[in-house]
Amino acid sequence: MIDRYSRPEFAEIWSDASRFETWLRVELSVCRAMEKRGIVPKGTADAVSETSLGKLDAARISEIESTCRHDVIAFLTHVEELAGEPARWLHLGMTSSDVLDSSTGVQCTTALAKILEGVDVLLASLKKRAEETKATPVMGRSHGIHAEPITAGLVFARWYAQLARCRERIEGAKKRIAVGKIAGAVGTYANIDPEIELEALGEVGLVPETVASQVVSRDRHAEVLNALAFMGAAIEDMAVGVRHWQRTEVGEAEEGFGKGQKGSSAMPHKKNPILSENLTGLARLLRAYAGASFENIALWHERDISHSSVERVSIPDATILADFMLVRCTRLIDGLVVKPERMMQNLERTGGLCFSEAVLLSLVRAGLPRQEAYVMVQRCAMAAHAGEGTFRDNLGADADIASRLTAEDLDAAFDLQHHLRHVDTIMARAFS
Amino acid sequence: MIDRYSRPEFAEIWSDASRFETWLRVELSVCRAMEKRGIVPKGTADAVSETSLGKLDAARISEIESTCRHDVIAFLTHVEELAGEPARWLHLGMTSSDVLDSSTGVQCTTALAKILEGVDVLLASLKKRAEETKATPVMGRSHGIHAEPITAGLVFARWYAQLARCRERIEGAKKRIAVGKIAGAVGTYANIDPEIELEALGEVGLVPETVASQVVSRDRHAEVLNALAFMGAAIEDMAVGVRHWQRTEVGEAEEGFGKGQKGSSAMPHKKNPILSENLTGLARLLRAYAGASFENIALWHERDISHSSVERVSIPDATILADFMLVRCTRLIDGLVVKPERMMQNLERTGGLCFSEAVLLSLVRAGLPRQEAYVMVQRCAMAAHAGEGTFRDNLGADADIASRLTAEDLDAAFDLQHHLRHVDTIMARAFS
Amino acid sequence: MIDRYSRPEFAEIWSDASRFETWLRVELSVCRAMEKRGIVPKGTADAVSETSLGKLDAARISEIESTCRHDVIAFLTHVEELAGEPARWLHLGMTSSDVLDSSTGVQCTTALAKILEGVDVLLASLKKRAEETKATPVMGRSHGIHAEPITAGLVFARWYAQLARCRERIEGAKKRIAVGKIAGAVGTYANIDPEIELEALGEVGLVPETVASQVVSRDRHAEVLNALAFMGAAIEDMAVGVRHWQRTEVGEAEEGFGKGQKGSSAMPHKKNPILSENLTGLARLLRAYAGASFENIALWHERDISHSSVERVSIPDATILADFMLVRCTRLIDGLVVKPERMMQNLERTGGLCFSEAVLLSLVRAGLPRQEAYVMVQRCAMAAHAGEGTFRDNLGADADIASRLTAEDLDAAFDLQHHLRHVDTIMARAFS
Amino acid sequence: MIDRYSRPEFAEIWSDASRFETWLRVELSVCRAMEKRGIVPKGTADAVSETSLGKLDAARISEIESTCRHDVIAFLTHVEELAGEPARWLHLGMTSSDVLDSSTGVQCTTALAKILEGVDVLLASLKKRAEETKATPVMGRSHGIHAEPITAGLVFARWYAQLARCRERIEGAKKRIAVGKIAGAVGTYANIDPEIELEALGEVGLVPETVASQVVSRDRHAEVLNALAFMGAAIEDMAVGVRHWQRTEVGEAEEGFGKGQKGSSAMPHKKNPILSENLTGLARLLRAYAGASFENIALWHERDISHSSVERVSIPDATILADFMLVRCTRLIDGLVVKPERMMQNLERTGGLCFSEAVLLSLVRAGLPRQEAYVMVQRCAMAAHAGEGTFRDNLGADADIASRLTAEDLDAAFDLQHHLRHVDTIMARAFS
Repeated sequence: MIDRYSRPEFAEIWSDASRFETWLRVELSVCRAMEKRGIVPKGTADAVSETSLGKLDAARISEIESTCRHDVIAFLTHVEELAGEPARWLHLGMTSSDVLDSSTGVQCTTALAKILEGVDVLLASLKKRAEETKATPVMGRSHGIHAEPITAGLVFARWYAQLARCRERIEGAKKRIAVGKIAGAVGTYANIDPEIELEALGEVGLVPETVASQVVSRDRHAEVLNALAFMGAAIEDMAVGVRHWQRTEVGEAEEGFGKGQKGSSAMPHKKNPILSENLTGLARLLRAYAGASFENIALWHERDISHSSVERVSIPDATILADFMLVRCTRLIDGLVVKPERMMQNLERTGGLCFSEAVLLSLVRAGLPRQEAYVMVQRCAMAAHAGEGTFRDNLGADADIASRLTAEDLDAAFDLQHHLRHVDTIMARAFS
Repeated sequence: MIDRYSRPEFAEIWSDASRFETWLRVELSVCRAMEKRGIVPKGTADAVSETSLGKLDAARISEIESTCRHDVIAFLTHVEELAGEPARWLHLGMTSSDVLDSSTGVQCTTALAKILEGVDVLLASLKKRAEETKATPVMGRSHGIHAEPITAGLVFARWYAQLARCRERIEGAKKRIAVGKIAGAVGTYANIDPEIELEALGEVGLVPETVASQVVSRDRHAEVLNALAFMGAAIEDMAVGVRHWQRTEVGEAEEGFGKGQKGSSAMPHKKNPILSENLTGLARLLRAYAGASFENIALWHERDISHSSVERVSIPDATILADFMLVRCTRLIDGLVVKPERMMQNLERTGGLCFSEAVLLSLVRAGLPRQEAYVMVQRCAMAAHAGEGTFRDNLGADADIASRLTAEDLDAAFDLQHHLRHVDTIMARAFS
Repeated sequence: MIDRYSRPEFAEIWSDASRFETWLRVELSVCRAMEKRGIVPKGTADAVSETSLGKLDAARISEIESTCRHDVIAFLTHVEELAGEPARWLHLGMTSSDVLDSSTGVQCTTALAKILEGVDVLLASLKKRAEETKATPVMGRSHGIHAEPITAGLVFARWYAQLARCRERIEGAKKRIAVGKIAGAVGTYANIDPEIELEALGEVGLVPETVASQVVSRDRHAEVLNALAFMGAAIEDMAVGVRHWQRTEVGEAEEGFGKGQKGSSAMPHKKNPILSENLTGLARLLRAYAGASFENIALWHERDISHSSVERVSIPDATILADFMLVRCTRLIDGLVVKPERMMQNLERTGGLCFSEAVLLSLVRAGLPRQEAYVMVQRCAMAAHAGEGTFRDNLGADADIASRLTAEDLDAAFDLQHHLRHVDTIMARAFS
Repeated sequence: MIDRYSRPEFAEIWSDASRFETWLRVELSVCRAMEKRGIVPKGTADAVSETSLGKLDAARISEIESTCRHDVIAFLTHVEELAGEPARWLHLGMTSSDVLDSSTGVQCTTALAKILEGVDVLLASLKKRAEETKATPVMGRSHGIHAEPITAGLVFARWYAQLARCRERIEGAKKRIAVGKIAGAVGTYANIDPEIELEALGEVGLVPETVASQVVSRDRHAEVLNALAFMGAAIEDMAVGVRHWQRTEVGEAEEGFGKGQKGSSAMPHKKNPILSENLTGLARLLRAYAGASFENIALWHERDISHSSVERVSIPDATILADFMLVRCTRLIDGLVVKPERMMQNLERTGGLCFSEAVLLSLVRAGLPRQEAYVMVQRCAMAAHAGEGTFRDNLGADADIASRLTAEDLDAAFDLQHHLRHVDTIMARAFS
């Protein structure tokens, strides 16, 4: 992933250095399990660890790979260079994928754990903003058209609830990716014992693949990328919401605008929702990586390696992006300037059209069939919409309506607080 | 979905008739909850039910919709035609999406329940085939190249384990889609009580959306389609496996070939794996529907209706396809003709090259550094590969190797049963 | 495709009846070319045509297929039933894919020709609306924020130009799909002559595949679906534009609202941009079908049939949708109610902030470095944005600016018509 | 894109240094066009060029951006640092997107030109291999099952023809992306003249966007990524073909295997088609980037910036990958070891089953109805398939067949060269 969208402290998970260290940790954990069983001489793992762990030279490994064209063999050759004789006990009965897939399991688990931390920070931010604005009325809109009033807090709460579901999905993916495999060339434990796998993987926080081929099944990795795509879409949902609120004509909220920030090279008056737009785009990339991951599942026989090139790009890029997006989205939510006065102005600009349903229901309660009542209310609304009188005045002047509803009835139908009386109930449900 | 890929008994879930009946059931469940609370006259729901349930005329609803251009209003108008006066108590305080989304929740839950039944049938079939063939040796292949021996049963078990994970994902999606919403125009319960929602939804097997906008959040629907795409990929994995086994040169298994079946209009000798190829393609369609569903999540404000046209096509089409694929895949697995003799012939055709790792490990145990041993074994293997002697003979004739390994050592390395000694352990893990 | 999104007159292209008739036409055209060369007895094609063309029974073909599990063989068997002895001369030296792929070429060409007609109708509608509104000022917006003025006509012209590019892509796809193949089982003309192919395909409007395998290459079909996805995105662009214009706070245009139409079951005041929202969603489906088509390109050896199930669904569904969208989008554009007064009100609501660039440039021309001028103008704009004075007043009151620009200079910078002086040039370019 | 899949000489197109230089070139070309018209003092462009071109400090620009959060403003500020007073004449009447989008047009055009060179190299390689092997018989396979004979050259020719179509698509995309825009904040030329745009863009090899918004329309960029996805799929088609040929049981071709190369860390006997598998995966990534690009087309009003983050990743990554794939695929094709003897062995292994169509046609010519003849031939073939006799013997022993076809007739039907007599015709068509 490009630097612009990477946080170095996260991207480090996927550096060459980290990867090779993880490979070595996996090899050593197997080696130790073998030492216990007398398959490998006591002290081998410690000896290799002392000379190699933290001392691997990624550039040297690359150099070797340019000849043998096989990354794990290059790695092992380099460890032999560093550790000498004891290194020959590494990789015993193992195949490259034992190292690679177990390491990917470790790295993905680490990445998802950090991402879950980021999700929790964003959830906390959303909850805080929801509570701050739970009683701030704002027009609810469907189809981009005024519908009925809600509060700003409900919007934050909705985003919270959706993100919380994405969190569940990431947890599920994390559970299912926390597997490895030390089962040999085709998963049969031809030259290694299942107990060694269980113990070695346990040491690095994994459990064995249920039935391995040469590799861990790729539905697990696809699930990781899909869970991130869901999270991306939840962030996109917030971003699109902010962009709508910040539109000039709406103006109900706006992104924090830094001191010295410039909105446009041409137009000095501009304050643009660029964080949100940026996040909207990044969500598309997360979807793209997820899409490619599905094609990695159906491999040939006991594996083909077509998934590998996809994953070398998509797993680091998608997790790095996801981390970046969480941090940026938290900044967006924390810094968002909510404008209650403008929210109220917009709410009032249609002269109460948003209360048309309440009037309709009053008429139904007064004995009218629903569709008949609908026609009466619609004509008063459409006249107001066309600039002929206000909705409230039109209702009062409509003989069919006036004969059924008193001015008090209409007042009750136009009562904002009545519409918002269940907000606390919803908030309680969201944050329970 | 086209008839060719639909099972009528499943597709019925999405018929106009079923949809309208479900809408009516949702309306009636709300009505009943209101009756209990005295909001609606006692007996209203029963009265409407008697005249309308099972008697809705889908064509008439279409006709009305052609004027009012709103499907739920058309439906309600038709119910008024059938039920007369009591019908005006329906839909009180509700918005169209209350009916639509709750009904979609009911229909999706029904569809996924049936799909899970289909998954269970397929799982049972896979388990049966796995047990039948657990001791049937077959060459394991990576990169399409012979690797080391496995058994056919392990392949079925691997498919089983992957499908079982897909089952978990479908269960998760089913849990999260089993929600509805009777919360009014923008989810605030402006004209209805949350307790009515809870009770009414409970009657149709749902729970309330945590924080609704005008609609239920679309991440839930996207998860359904994604869970099916995973299942599709798992089926694709089996299908690709069968196609490889059935290749003329491999010939280790073949699809059952019906009496009277013809493989090709031009070539009377052909027996093609058409079920598997068909399933491979259908998996692509499931992925496509899943991809589109992600774009439905970030809606404008309290909802825009852009998701609706996507869902009218994708939710029925994807679930109908998923059901069809399960039935077809079960037929494929049940009918698959496994050919143990051919499997053994292929296993033996490389003259034991597949035991090269065992030889390598013997050399390492005999004291050689891994990479040095590798070079020795590789030269014997490559010579055999190029037609110069058999692998076993070459090993015996290689001075470096012969000085370290006896004929008995080589025999042990070439022992097939030794390679397969952990099969039972793996099978037990898969089916536990 | 579901009825709701199908026009019967278009969907007919893909009916069973049409498909079988096209197959027969292809078979007969080959038969005629063979008659000319004395391979088949004179009169054979006419004899078969007389008894079979227009008389095929799709249900009977289905019935036969249920035994032989091969659609083309079922078709041929049925033609033998109808035509008797002469039918044995059909399909000579051909394989099923010769019939199927050539027919698909014919059907796709027909479908795309109709779609191009629909594109032309929509282009004409856009051009008309562009000319009507070419001098109607409206605020141009970037990031959803007021930028500088444009005219409504420019927007229609932009949509026109984009759709015209999509038309080029569809033309390209149509050219490349207008191929067929009468080259036998693996494309070698083993039992048929290339000249027969050339002549037979010419009769149905196609040219031969350059190098066929058993089938026509699938990049051609994928290009068709991708070209439609582009068209879908162009329509989506218009739809999203209309939805923004129709937002309550913007209100600069709205979809025509039919007599008797109802916007919401709950809220009688609603007028929603439902055509546009519908089109927005349908564009997602077109993208989905296009995505699946890429996976059909890399087939095994001389073909596997995995593409077939995808295409049975995606080619009809995507073309039917594309046709439907064009008709619906034309209705949208034709019926769109443009509101010049509201456009002007919105344009004026920021008190001329949209002229900030013109002021900036005046300062640069007056000798200030750009970034210094930027800071001066930005402070006046941000104050106005925050409600402190109007932008124009702030500029006049800013000592740094007042010392450089006269009131006349500012008037010139605030001149709307000056901003729009090149509109005719752009329009001329669009419609040339 | 990660280093492993980047060629530095290509990736350089997208380096910060190249990007900023391109920006400056665009600014200078506008400046020169203004100088000619007396809008900007003569010599300004030269003055800025002398102090800045080739001297931009990307790190310094980043530093400035961290305050103003706007990349183009940061760039301009830096140019002012380097060039002093004359720099204030840059960017006159322009908006950031004028610079950015025109530069993207330049960079994409450069990238596609290089990619087309790479395509041509690959085409030449395919043609050479096709000619070398045009008379090398190999079994043609459909559904993975033996069909009828072809030649290896036909396969290369087919890949050539498909890639040539992809070339046409890239050419089309290149033509349509070679546009820029110097039209100001919302494309109206509010503060700049269309003639300046025409001249300035011409200097950098572009033409003006037909109707610009703030930006160049994004269908153009999406077309670039889609054209690359097609190319990726064509390469995938070759890669999958090679992987099938190299399968152990098939063994008809194999990737060149480097001296010192190791196929597996566990199994010294392995020679795996890793180049092909790698390319198969990379094609998935190209599809993913293309998919995301469609969502960038429908922007809000005169543009939102959501496309930007997608493009910052996807355009460089996809073009870099495409370049890398071309080089790697050329290496694959050049180095492919074709094995004519093995091809012939496989062709002969079914005992002539592949000639079943020719026998069928002889029977039809001898007067039998097609479906009757089919049944006779099929029974002989299925018996052979089941190990009962050879196909040829079975035919001779079948009374129904023997009464109609002589041994000479059967010999003729089993004639390999007869099947391949049109190869030259096809080759000529492919390379004309």
